Amino acid sequence: MANPYDQAHELAKAIQESSDFQELKNLQAEIEKEETSKRMFDDFRSMQMELSMKQMQGQEITPEEMEKANKLFETIKLNPTISKLLDAEQKFSKIMEDLNKIVMGPLQELYQN
Amino acid sequence: MANPYDQAHELAKAIQESSDFQELKNLQAEIEKEETSKRMFDDFRSMQMELSMKQMQGQEITPEEMEKANKLFETIKLNPTISKLLDAEQKFSKIMEDLNKIVMGPLQELYQN
Repeated sequence: MANPYDQAHELAKAIQESSDFQELKNLQAEIEKEETSKRMFDDFRSMQMELSMKQMQGQEITPEEMEKANKLFETIKLNPTISKLLDAEQKFSKIMEDLNKIVMGPLQELYQN
Repeated sequence: MANPYDQAHELAKAIQESSDFQELKNLQAEIEKEETSKRMFDDFRSMQMELSMKQMQGQEITPEEMEKANKLFETIKLNPTISKLLDAEQKFSKIMEDLNKIVMGPLQELYQN
């Protein structure tokens, strides 16, 4: 019978060796080397984080803030490295979500009532 | 190179076959057969859920509610099946937390800055 801890390490290794993970890592390294892209991307991340925090604290996001966020998003997407990084992040995050659902599957058997 | 999806299924299988999972499942089945235990446990769960919801919505939990919850907890723990089930749940939840940390490990490499 396989030990869940060993299997979890095997899964972590498979994630780390996957092409999606490697691509994401390479794009991150690429952006680190492009000073302007890096700054734009960091600004976008900070703003995204700030708005998420507001939402989690139950504060409303104003139409002005939303418009500013959307505009910044449209702008940074024009940068090819950032655009590729955003796509790679989205793809990878979907994969992690899928994997998480699979791993948490046994819990459904326990708490289906 | 191992496919992360296959590995996730292997992990789910290892969890399902683990003695901790099986014990939890057996205790759940046992409690289903004991009408009084089941009702006590369900009441406790409902109250726990209600208080969590309040907390998540930023509402304060009154000292009276807290005292009621603690008293109910002390009472249900005297029931041997419930007591074993609570222990098994706690143990299993710790394992799932550990596994999750292992699986999410590769993300640290990406977002360590």
